[in-house]
This record gives sequence, structure tokens and C-alpha cells, in this order.
Amino acid sequence: MTSILILNGPNLNLLGQRQPEVYGTTTLAGIETACRARATELGLGLDFHQSNSEGALVDLIHGAQGVHDGIVINAGAYTHTSIALMDALSSVALPAVELHLSNIHAREEFRHRSYIARVALGVICGFGPTGYLLAIDALEAHLGRVR
Amino acid sequence: MTSILILNGPNLNLLGQRQPEVYGTTTLAGIETACRARATELGLGLDFHQSNSEGALVDLIHGAQGVHDGIVINAGAYTHTSIALMDALSSVALPAVELHLSNIHAREEFRHRSYIARVALGVICGFGPTGYLLAIDALEAHLGRVR
Amino acid sequence: MTSILILNGPNLNLLGQRQPEVYGTTTLAGIETACRARATELGLGLDFHQSNSEGALVDLIHGAQGVHDGIVINAGAYTHTSIALMDALSSVALPAVELHLSNIHAREEFRHRSYIARVALGVICGFGPTGYLLAIDALEAHLGRVR
Amino acid sequence: MTSILILNGPNLNLLGQRQPEVYGTTTLAGIETACRARATELGLGLDFHQSNSEGALVDLIHGAQGVHDGIVINAGAYTHTSIALMDALSSVALPAVELHLSNIHAREEFRHRSYIARVALGVICGFGPTGYLLAIDALEAHLGRVR
Amino acid sequence: MTSILILNGPNLNLLGQRQPEVYGTTTLAGIETACRARATELGLGLDFHQSNSEGALVDLIHGAQGVHDGIVINAGAYTHTSIALMDALSSVALPAVELHLSNIHAREEFRHRSYIARVALGVICGFGPTGYLLAIDALEAHLGRVR
Amino acid sequence: MTSILILNGPNLNLLGQRQPEVYGTTTLAGIETACRARATELGLGLDFHQSNSEGALVDLIHGAQGVHDGIVINAGAYTHTSIALMDALSSVALPAVELHLSNIHAREEFRHRSYIARVALGVICGFGPTGYLLAIDALEAHLGRVR
Amino acid sequence: MTSILILNGPNLNLLGQRQPEVYGTTTLAGIETACRARATELGLGLDFHQSNSEGALVDLIHGAQGVHDGIVINAGAYTHTSIALMDALSSVALPAVELHLSNIHAREEFRHRSYIARVALGVICGFGPTGYLLAIDALEAHLGRVR
Amino acid sequence: MTSILILNGPNLNLLGQRQPEVYGTTTLAGIETACRARATELGLGLDFHQSNSEGALVDLIHGAQGVHDGIVINAGAYTHTSIALMDALSSVALPAVELHLSNIHAREEFRHRSYIARVALGVICGFGPTGYLLAIDALEAHLGRVR
Amino acid sequence: MTSILILNGPNLNLLGQRQPEVYGTTTLAGIETACRARATELGLGLDFHQSNSEGALVDLIHGAQGVHDGIVINAGAYTHTSIALMDALSSVALPAVELHLSNIHAREEFRHRSYIARVALGVICGFGPTGYLLAIDALEAHLGRVR
Amino acid sequence: MTSILILNGPNLNLLGQRQPEVYGTTTLAGIETACRARATELGLGLDFHQSNSEGALVDLIHGAQGVHDGIVINAGAYTHTSIALMDALSSVALPAVELHLSNIHAREEFRHRSYIARVALGVICGFGPTGYLLAIDALEAHLGRVR
Amino acid sequence: MTSILILNGPNLNLLGQRQPEVYGTTTLAGIETACRARATELGLGLDFHQSNSEGALVDLIHGAQGVHDGIVINAGAYTHTSIALMDALSSVALPAVELHLSNIHAREEFRHRSYIARVALGVICGFGPTGYLLAIDALEAHLGRVR
Amino acid sequence: MTSILILNGPNLNLLGQRQPEVYGTTTLAGIETACRARATELGLGLDFHQSNSEGALVDLIHGAQGVHDGIVINAGAYTHTSIALMDALSSVALPAVELHLSNIHAREEFRHRSYIARVALGVICGFGPTGYLLAIDALEAHLGRVR
Repeated sequence: MTSILILNGPNLNLLGQRQPEVYGTTTLAGIETACRARATELGLGLDFHQSNSEGALVDLIHGAQGVHDGIVINAGAYTHTSIALMDALSSVALPAVELHLSNIHAREEFRHRSYIARVALGVICGFGPTGYLLAIDALEAHLGRVR
Repeated sequence: MTSILILNGPNLNLLGQRQPEVYGTTTLAGIETACRARATELGLGLDFHQSNSEGALVDLIHGAQGVHDGIVINAGAYTHTSIALMDALSSVALPAVELHLSNIHAREEFRHRSYIARVALGVICGFGPTGYLLAIDALEAHLGRVR
Repeated sequence: MTSILILNGPNLNLLGQRQPEVYGTTTLAGIETACRARATELGLGLDFHQSNSEGALVDLIHGAQGVHDGIVINAGAYTHTSIALMDALSSVALPAVELHLSNIHAREEFRHRSYIARVALGVICGFGPTGYLLAIDALEAHLGRVR
Repeated sequence: MTSILILNGPNLNLLGQRQPEVYGTTTLAGIETACRARATELGLGLDFHQSNSEGALVDLIHGAQGVHDGIVINAGAYTHTSIALMDALSSVALPAVELHLSNIHAREEFRHRSYIARVALGVICGFGPTGYLLAIDALEAHLGRVR
Repeated sequence: MTSILILNGPNLNLLGQRQPEVYGTTTLAGIETACRARATELGLGLDFHQSNSEGALVDLIHGAQGVHDGIVINAGAYTHTSIALMDALSSVALPAVELHLSNIHAREEFRHRSYIARVALGVICGFGPTGYLLAIDALEAHLGRVR
Repeated sequence: MTSILILNGPNLNLLGQRQPEVYGTTTLAGIETACRARATELGLGLDFHQSNSEGALVDLIHGAQGVHDGIVINAGAYTHTSIALMDALSSVALPAVELHLSNIHAREEFRHRSYIARVALGVICGFGPTGYLLAIDALEAHLGRVR
Repeated sequence: MTSILILNGPNLNLLGQRQPEVYGTTTLAGIETACRARATELGLGLDFHQSNSEGALVDLIHGAQGVHDGIVINAGAYTHTSIALMDALSSVALPAVELHLSNIHAREEFRHRSYIARVALGVICGFGPTGYLLAIDALEAHLGRVR
Repeated sequence: MTSILILNGPNLNLLGQRQPEVYGTTTLAGIETACRARATELGLGLDFHQSNSEGALVDLIHGAQGVHDGIVINAGAYTHTSIALMDALSSVALPAVELHLSNIHAREEFRHRSYIARVALGVICGFGPTGYLLAIDALEAHLGRVR
Repeated sequence: MTSILILNGPNLNLLGQRQPEVYGTTTLAGIETACRARATELGLGLDFHQSNSEGALVDLIHGAQGVHDGIVINAGAYTHTSIALMDALSSVALPAVELHLSNIHAREEFRHRSYIARVALGVICGFGPTGYLLAIDALEAHLGRVR
Repeated sequence: MTSILILNGPNLNLLGQRQPEVYGTTTLAGIETACRARATELGLGLDFHQSNSEGALVDLIHGAQGVHDGIVINAGAYTHTSIALMDALSSVALPAVELHLSNIHAREEFRHRSYIARVALGVICGFGPTGYLLAIDALEAHLGRVR
Repeated sequence: MTSILILNGPNLNLLGQRQPEVYGTTTLAGIETACRARATELGLGLDFHQSNSEGALVDLIHGAQGVHDGIVINAGAYTHTSIALMDALSSVALPAVELHLSNIHAREEFRHRSYIARVALGVICGFGPTGYLLAIDALEAHLGRVR
Repeated sequence: MTSILILNGPNLNLLGQRQPEVYGTTTLAGIETACRARATELGLGLDFHQSNSEGALVDLIHGAQGVHDGIVINAGAYTHTSIALMDALSSVALPAVELHLSNIHAREEFRHRSYIARVALGVICGFGPTGYLLAIDALEAHLGRVR
């Protein structure tokens, strides 16, 4: 069965509580539930993780090799600073979709730069929790084309 | 009936012919057909236009007021240079989704900057023609929330 | 009879509707009426145009040669990006006043740069519709000095 | 009676003598006379000062509170370097018009930046001594609107 | 018969009148005549167009496919700002020669950057109307090599 | 009882040993003792932690919610690179004081930028271990005002 | 008796009136009173001055030699532009504490740069009037160490 | 016995698998074996570690004090972003050799900057696994000189 | 008889051997032969030199005074770094054509800047060996105009 | 009798005391004595002033008109920040020599920029008090040429 | 027999005398002796040259074709400014090792950029004369792999 | 006898002929004569050289060791680009005076940067041939102080 990994970076564990005017009131558990529903609907396996540690996220990406067929990654603040995550994604031969809840291009200048986007299949941002479902759909469509 | 406008900017009329290794072999007519199918499925009205002229695109955005409920815009090269399109979008009170076929962040540096993203609801890029369907879904989800 | 041309660039057709907290509630038709009244009072001929197209604005500037004695131009967003408009103004031997409804220097960084100002007689910005009358007065005073 | 303060910064005392090809042959005294005539015509009180000292100009701005209803300021070279004058203007609750005799945008790059413009009502530049009268008119129009 | 398209951008219709100290006194019609003479001499078909509109120039480039074998383009001010023209040229599979009447590298800083040069075969600038003939020769030589 | 959290970032465990000409000879344990004395004196609860891991520091900030009333953070080198720590501080609704032993503005250029300062109540730097006591006093004064 | 000089730069005379949402409602006289109370408590002599003139502030710093043992300076807007004040502080052999009422790092970009910080003992910012007392404490602690 | 520590940063655990056209097909275990052989040959003690976590690498550097006489560090992507690792190396009084498998100066611009190089004894890059042996030799030569 | 000097800078002696995918397979001797044929055809005298030394090229330019009527210079890598060559060209009163075999604007960023172009009559680049003949024609046409 | 004005800017009153490793131990009075001796020797009148105030220096420059034939100015820190002093020098029709005791190009980056040098006859820096005598000689030589 | 060329750029003839605190006391003759010993040991032929002239170094690189199998180059100051040397190295089909005695990344900013590194096999810097032996070893290892 | 070396860089051999509006009509031979007269007057030995080659100038600087006591260098265009000359000057233990005929700070931006000034005793520019005599005087004064 085709399987995907959804990774969430720093501070996303606080979702629903942190700056709700920017990120909305849905919790990460709520998002996980919605993702699992969509995955079931599409016949996809799904792993869903969150970590505040850059190194732990690198480890999780490495671990996806031979286990998953693609990655959806909301790397949070590490998006803008982590060359290590970019290298990790290009090290494993898996298509990745970069995801952000908010429209990072309408926020501070330093959130406009993404190292991850350089190696990602594509980027989705600004649609809140709906973005996770769009990312799963986009990844599924891509995997369908290359299958 | 809820209705949306899909706008396509310069050179997109050549789709399927221009740099297929970047943009794929689907034509704009093929994309329009797929969009109309999805719109029908979702019960949405749809207008679909392409123009190579910045001024004509501004006019089309103005004309959406009172006619459409949201805009999907693939502004092509104007994305990176047109403050006029950004101003046009912020002038009309309609949610807009910025769309690109290719992952602009993995291409030349001058394609990383987007004026349109500053006023858009969100951005989707890198998923080829599938991105149009994701954009329609994202806009529909947003309109559903605010309805 | 001395005659002047007033040119308005992209999105100014929406005046009175677009971001009224920035641009006020007066329409472009209202401004034209006020300009015509002032021109009559000063014994000046007046043409008044708006276009969303950069090329059409270039054409209008070219057409002013031998017809008008000076130009007032509110180039909107093209102020910051159009070298073509700057070249058009320096091509025709007519004094030009750059005009903006809002104080562009108190807005986004990318609105601080003006190509047009490099070849204009002077600049007036920040006074709303009143600025049009000030610009007519400034141009009249300049033409009076060189007559 | 409504009253306005006109402030002139460094080197403007030499007007009529300094670089006449840039600034013209009118003296500051001549400008003051013209300003007083226009003020009388409009029923406005007027104070008119010049100083070469940044600190003295800050003091003059502070002193305008409770005495004047608006300020016209030609800050000369301090326009481009003085955050203190910008802060002084934003400290007193008075509308201010930034004025320059020459078109600063057509001169050296370092004259394109203005700290004062960030807190001013608007900017007028490039019309020589006529600019003072336009600035009085612009300020009067603004005060009329808010009266 | 081998055929080439010569495109002229904004303000070039005023040639012979605009800043003759920079661009000389030859008119665009005079240049067209000289180009046609050279084309006849070389046995080449020739189309020759001018437009002030970026979008119209994009359309003309698109229209060259299947009709012409190469393009000479003097894009004027759009050279420095138009990614759309660059994309249009790379979309159609035709060799293009970038041309300027003046030596753009000896003028203002913002005229040193060219988007078009990134996709052109080569660049010729600084030789006035003679440059058009050199460009035709250069294109002919290139087409001869690849024929 | 009001309680505060003091966080120390990378390399601060080596205090008293590392570059004493910059950071002095006091150890982190010595600083903790002095902080606890001051906290007791002011009737404050106190937690005091050090970690070399960015992710662990994010976790500690998250854990302060509902437990502490304010945070003093000496983020060391992460001050200049960690958007994740900035986001963590803005996620939890607690006032934070940024602290540095040395005067970071008198050191290398790359130590002048602070992401944390953008969301902190205020900054204290350059006073060595005394700075910790000043930071406690500053936080206590702030909490006193908002209590 | 140990004595310190507290210097206040441009616009601080308006404290309590100017942008109270940024600087609070305390007046400079109120701050002086609080500083004198703290100085008395610590057995310190104190001079307290404000000037809007950069040159006068330089003179006051020079005058501190042989009279005071340290300086607390809130240089206001001159913090960001005055190399002369930086040179004055490094000319006199007195430790200086840089102080700001607001957190300058959370405001406009041009307020992030400080010439004074390059030669100061340390910096305190963001704690409002409390900052003055913290600065006196920091300076007293430093003087105690070097006594 | 003289002993050295060899540290490997993020993604190096995937060596031999990740982008073999850049990094070659040797695994990290293979490199460790070669290093141990060279160390034995030179009569050196050797520790060899890899971690994807910046904090863990800081801990390992701290732990080298009193245990090892020098460090060879291939910090991978953290080379370009980690001030914390730079500070850790300058905190412990041990000579360090910076090492990269690939020639980082011939890759992306953001890989040209190294924080670690500022405090390292020297840098070796571009020689693949051979670089590790060269680094051991370089460190041995240095230790021999200072012994 | 009118005479021209053709100068070739560093590495051009290797032409035909060095990076043929960029510079083609023609040798410098082959180019000289073609240039001499064209010169004979046009009734021009011709000198043709190559040197890898910046100083020798400066000497050759100086020596052209009173001997030649114009210069064609392919300065190779010195184009981008040599102010001395630029000064040499502006010192001698001879028109110069800058020439490059490849389209330097489509290569690395540091090859886009040309000091020589600032003082040259014009620039021709991207047409391979044909460019030499075009440059001779361009220089001949210019000399014809000024004769 | 030919007469010159020597102006000294901020902090130069402390000469001989401030950073003697940079500026030497000579006092400003000692320099004035040496300058007066050289002036007498050359038959020149001399005025010699110092002020810490930018405005006062502007006044002194204005006052030189009709009184002095040239100016030697050591503007200290204002060299790098004052457009007002530059404007004052260009306003009065007097040749000016810019002078610095230290070699400003071998110090901090922000001391490399000089507004004054843009309008000065020439610059002398790095020779300590001897520089004043060189500046008098240079000005005398220039005045001799134009007399 | 495999043979290598060692090139030394400007000022390296003064080695042992110039800034010994940076470059050590070994002379270039001493280094040549050590290199010859290592080459003999490895069975390699060796040429060893120094020149202060950029053009002469280009000539020496050209001359290595067909004579040597690899190059070790310490280009000194030309490392940072010479595109001509970079082009020369890429023109000849020989692997090159870039070498520096000092750690250039711990020195002035302008020594961090290397044109040569863009085309070199790898870089070794900071190990003093030992670096030459490491470079020979690295080149030998590389040649061994490709033999 | 104390002896000095005067070095002249590229294009200075053309003095008196090249751009006389910038450099005057005096020839280099005329300057040498004046320098020799001044040296005789001061009892100084003098060598005077010019070369267009960067490498030859480096050689001449090296040759000054043990022969001369100081250097006056007008490096012409190499001033702005040559790190090799800067290194040569810092390699030999001789004081150097940087000299320019024109005021380089009032010319093009790229002439404002000087590598040589970083290691020079001081700089003199803008006084034409007189500057050579001032430079000899400045060097003599310096040598007198250190003798």
C-alpha cells in the first residue's frame, strides 16, 4: 500500500492555542484526524509526527526511506533557516510537498525564504488546515502519475 | 450560484509547447476542460481567460466585481514584476489564490519574488495542471467557510 | 490656448471604491470635474484620460506632442516599474508633474522608488484629490515662467 | 485664527546665491514675503523661521504645539539624515507638509531618501519658490477638511 | 525562403525626434528601409513591427512560430523589466538577437540589466542604426551555420 | 506565588571557562545561586535551566505556560539564528526579557541581529552576571505593573 | 562621592505627551525624580540633562570628565545616526550605559543600528522608565567592581 | 597517548547512498575504518561520532576537553548556519580542522559561508573520503609542532 | 590607409581547445585569417595581437595612438576586472568596439559587469568568430561616418 | 592679503587626550600655533575654529564668504554623516581641503564614506598634525594657480 | 612518470620575511625542498614556480598541458580577484588543488571569495608549509583514483 | 642618506595627454623633475618608476627593501583592484604614502575603494602634480619623527 509521512516542525504542537488570528483554532490532533480520514478515503497509509528538534526531524526523514512513498512537511520556522533539512530531503529519494498554514509571503520578510522549497515537488501555503488535505491530494496525484 | 474566475497571464497560451520539461505537455485548453469538470462537480460557475497584456489582466480583475466570488490567478512572469496586478487584486474585494505550474522557488532567483502573494489568500505551486484543481478546491473550501 | 494633459494609470478607474482608507471616497469622475473647473478658471485647455495599459499610456504621452503644453501624470503602480513611461516622457519635450493621491513614501518600500520622478519637473503626493489642483497650479506657474 | 509654521533648514539662508542653476535667484526673504501675502489672502496666521541647527529645528517644532495648526518644512539636507526631526514631527500632533525647491528625486541617490516623508501629510518638490505657495494651499485644504 | 522578424519596443516610433544626441536623427522608417534593402540583398524575407505594448510584443513573438526563422529585437525599456518577453522568446524555438541603438552599458545603472540577454543568441549595442544591419548579418550567419 | 523561568542556551554550561576575557570567571552555578537569592528576596518562584539544544529550549518555553509568569532568556548563539525560539516565545503568552552577558553590539556583525528581541519585552546586555539580576528586577517591575 | 551623569537626547523633553502608546505617560521630570531617589538611596551624586542638540550633548559628555564616574545616555534618535556622540563617549574615559525606553529592536529597521552601543558598557531597552533605575543599578554595580 | 575526535554532522550517516555524484559511494563506516587505520599508523587515539542534532554536536565538542588533543569536524549543513558550533569550538581550547567531502565553493552560494572556518586551524574540502586522512595528517603535524 | 588594431586578452591563445561547447572549435589563427580577409576586402590596415598580461595589453593600447584609427578588443576575463584597461582606452583618443565570443549575459553573474563597455563605442557578444567580422564592420561604419 | 579658514569639528577640542594611539599627543592649541607659523611664513591670513555643533560649523562656512579665500576642514565624525556641511561648502564659492589626522580608510567601514570629499578640492589624511601644514600648502598652491 | 606543477603567486617569494606571525618563518626555497622530497618519495615528477605577474601565471598554466598531470596552486592575492586564472585552469584539462598557507576564512572579508575554488578539485588552507605536502598527497590520491 | 621610491602605475606614462580636464597638462617627466628638485632640497635620495604591469610594480616594491626608507605610490587604476599590491606593501617594512592626482572620491563609485589605503601611512588626492611634493613632504616628516 502506498504510504506517506506527514512531518510537523517546531511550535506546531501548540496549534489552536498560538496566535489563533494567524493559525486558526484547530489543534494538531484535529488536523491529524482529518488527514487520516482523507488517507483512508484515498487508500493511503499515513504516519504523522511533530518535533521541536531539527535533528529529530532529520532522523524522521531518513527513516522514511523504504517505508513511505512521499512526504508532506510543515517545517515551521526551520523552513527559513535549515539547510540540514533541505539536505535530508534531497538525500532520501522521496517526493516532498512543503506546507504552511499561513501565507508566509504576506508575513515578515525573513519568512519569504525557504531552503526546503528548493528541493520540494511544490509548495502550498495560506489555506490553514485545509492545506494538509490539499497537500495529500497533490502528493497522491504526483504518485499516481509516476506509478 | 457561487462563481470563480481563473486568469492566466503571459505565454500560458503556448502551454504544452513551451519548455515541456518544465511545464508539461498539457495544453491550456486541456486545463480549462479539467477545471470546468471540477467546477461542475462542485456546483461552481467558472470563467477562464488568458491574456499576454498586463493591462488586460487588470481589466479582467476589475470586471470580476459583482460577477465572481473568488479568483485563481496564474500570472506567469507578471507575478514577479507587476505591482499593478497586486493593486488590482487588493482593489476588488475578492479572495485570490496564486497559482504556478512549476515550483518557482526551485528556479531562477528573480522568480522567487511575488508581488501577488502579498495580497493573495494563499499560494500553490509545483504540481503542474493538478495545481488548478487544488486551487479550485482551496478557494471552494475558503468560500464555504465564509459563506 | 495653453493646454494640459492629465493622465491616470492602472486601477485609478476604481477610485472611490478601492481601499478608501488610503485613497478616499472621491471618484475619478469627481476629480475630472474639479480639474476641468480649475482649468476653465485658469483659461487652460484640458484632456483627461485613464488606462490600465502601460503601452496605451505611452501612446497617450506621444500623442501630446504639438497638442498639449504640459502633462500631469498619476502613473499609479507603473510609477515604480516602468522605464518605458520615463522614456516616453523624456522623448516628448513637455514638462511633467508627477502626482500621487497617497504619500507613497509612508507606504511599502517598493513604492518609494519612482522612475518618472527622474524626468519630471516636480512631484506632489499625499494630498488626495486636492493634489490634482495643486499639480495644475504648479504646471501653470511653470508654463507662465517659460512663456 | 488658523496659523501655520514654515520651517527652513540648513543653507536655505543662502538662497538666491547658492547654485542658482538648481535653486533659482529668489531669496528666502522674497519667499517669506510671498508666503505672507498668500497667508493674508487665505486668512491664515504665519510664522517663518530658518536655522542651520538640527537641534534648533527640533525646538521650533516642539514650540509649535498649541500655537500653530500645521507645519510646512523644507528641512534641506536634514531631510535625508535626521531621525530626530522625524520624531519631533510625530511627537507634536500637527499635520506637516514636506517641501523641497528642487526635484530631489532627479539629483544624487542619497537625496532620494526622506525620513520626514514617513510622517508627513504629503510631499511637494521641484517647483522652486512656487512650491511654498502650493504647500500653504495643500495645508489649508487639509485643515479645511478636518475643521 | 528564410525569413526574419524585427521587433521594436516602446518609444522607438519616435526615433529621430527623441533625444537625438543619444539616438541620432534617423527615423524608424529609415531603419526599416535599410533593413529591407539588406534583407533583399541577402535573400531573406522580413517583417518589421513596432509596439509600445509589452503584451502586443509577446503576441508578435508567439506569432513568429512557423512563420519566421529568427528574431531581431530592440525591446527598448522593456529589455530591463520584462520577464514576460524573456519567457516569450524562450517559449518559441527561434534564435533571437538583442539589439540597442545606444551603448546601454555606458548609461544609467538600471539600463545595464537585461532579461532578454539571458535567452538571446547574442547582443549588439552602441552602433546606432548600423546595429540593425549587423544584427541581420549576425542572424543570417547563425542560420547559415545551423541550416 | 509569582514565578519566573530563566533559560540559558548553548555553551553557557561552560561559563567561567570559555573565553573569560569576554564572559568573566563566574560559573553558571554561581549565577544560579545569585538569581535564587534575588528571587527569594523578591518573593518569586524560580526555575533555572540550560541546554545546548534548540529543540529542548523550545520545549522548555512551551512548558512554562501555566507554570511561570515570565521568562528571562539568554539564548546565546541561537539569539541570532533561531526563528523557532522567537516563534515559541510568541506562542506562549508570557513576557520575556532577552539577556546577554557581553555587549553583543560591540562584537562581530553577525551577533548584532536578534530574532528574539522582536518579541521580547526588552533587552539587557553587557553587564556580565549582574545582568541576570537586572533582568529579574525588570521582569518583576513589569509583572508588578500588570498585576 | 561617586557621581553619575544622565543624558537625554532629542524629543525626550516631550515625554508623557509624545506617542504614549510607545513611551508611556511618565514625564521626564517624573523620571528625574525617580532617578534622584535611587541615587540618594545608593549614595551617588547625579546630574540629569536633556538637549535636542547633538553638539550640546557632545559638550555635556566632554564636561563629565573629572566630574562624573559614569554616564547613562538615552540618546534618542541620535543613537542611530551620530558618530560624533560615539566618538565623544570613547574620547572621555568613562563607562557608559545605553538606554532606551522602548524596545528599539521591535520597531523600524533603521532603529536597530546603534553607533553608541559599539563603545558602551552595555545596553538596556524596552522597560520604560524602569530602565533608568536598572541603568543606574548596572552602572553602580560596574563601578563597584572597578573601584 | 595523543588522541583526536572526529565529528560528523547532519545527513552524513546516509553517506554512500545520498547524491553519490556529489559525495561518492563510500559509507561513513568505511571512512571510520580508514581513519582508524591511519590513527593506528600514527599512534593516535581516535573517537568517531555522527549526529544529526546541533545540540548533540555541541555536547560532543564540550566533552572533548581533557580527553582529546584536537578535533576534525565535518559539520555538514550546520557549517553554514551554526554560530553555536563555532562558539563551542572556541570555548574548548582544542585545535580544529574543518572538513568537507565536496568542494563547497563550487556549489550553491549559501554553502560558501562557514562560521566554523573563523575559529578553525584550517580547512580541507573537495577530496572526498581522502580528506579525512589529510585532516588527520594536518592535525597530527600541527600537534607535533606544538608538542 | 585607415588601420585598426584587434586585441585579444587572456586565454584566447587556447581558442579551439578551451571549452569548445562554449567557445567553438575555431582557433585564434583561424580568426586572424578571417579578419585579415575582411580587412583587405574593406581596404583597411590591420594589426592582430594576443596577450595574457594586463600590463602588456595596456602597452598595446597606448602604442595604437598615431598608428591605428580604431580598436576591436576581446579582453576576455579582464573585461570584468580591469579598470586599467578601461583607463587606457579612454586615454587614447580612439573608438573601441568591445567583443566577446560567448553571450556573457547568459553566463555567470560576475561576467555580466564590464568596465570596458563604459568607454566603448558599442558591444557585440554571443556570435562566436563571426563577431570579429561584425566588429570590423561596425568600426568601419563608424569611421566612415566620422571621416 | 589672502586668507584661509581652518575648521575643526566634533571632539577635536579633546585632541591630545582622546585615543592618543590613534590621534597622537599634540593638542589643538599646538596645531593652531603651528598653522599660524606656517601662515605667517606664507603671508596668509588665518582663522582657526572648533565646534562640536553641526549647525555652528555650517554658520562658520557661510561666514567665510567675502572674508576668506579657502577653507581647510577637519569635520571629524560629521565627515561621514553630514550632507548639510557638504551643501554649505558647495554653497560658498571657496575651495576646500578635507583633512583627517588618522587614515580613515584604515579604520572602521563607516569612516570610509565622506560627503565632504564630493565637493572638496582634495583630501589629506593619515599624517597627524603634519597634515594641517600639508593642507595649508596644498590650498596655497591651488590659490597661487588660480590667482 | 606522473608529474605535477606547483605554482606560487604574488609576494610568495618573500616568504619567511613577510608577516611571519601570519605566514611563518619557512622560506619558499625551504618549501620547494620539502615538496621535492615528498614527490620523490611518491615517485612523482615536479615543477615549482613563483611569479608576481598574473599573465605569467596564466602562461605557466597553459604550458602545463601535455607536460603535467595536475596542478597545486597558491595564487596568493590573485585568488580573490583573477577571473583570468580561473579561466586558465578551466581551459587546460588538469585537476587543480587550491592552497593557502593561512586560513583565509579567518582573515579579512575580501579574502573569503575565491574564483579559483570554483574550478578546483578542492581547497586546503591554514596549515602553513605542511599544506603543500597535504596538497601533493591529495592530488596524488586523486590521480591514483582516475589512473 | 635617506632615500625614497616613487612608483607610478598604469596609464600614468600618458600624463599630460590623457583627459587633461581631469589630470592637467603636466607630463610625468615634468613631475619627476619637480620631485628630484624637492628631494635634493630635502637631502633625500630618490628613485622614480612607472609601469603598466601589476606584477612589475610588485617587483619594484620588493626591490625597495634595504634600498629605500619609504614609498610614494600612485597606483592608478590598480589602487581599486589590486590586493597583490596591498600585500606587497605590507610585506616590505616601509612606510607608504598613497597618492592620486585627481580627487578619486568625486569620481565614479568604483574609484572610491582603495586596497592600498588599508596599509598606507596616509592618503593625498586631488591636488594634481602638487600632490607629489606634498607626499614627499609628508613622508619626510614621518621619517623625521621615527628617525
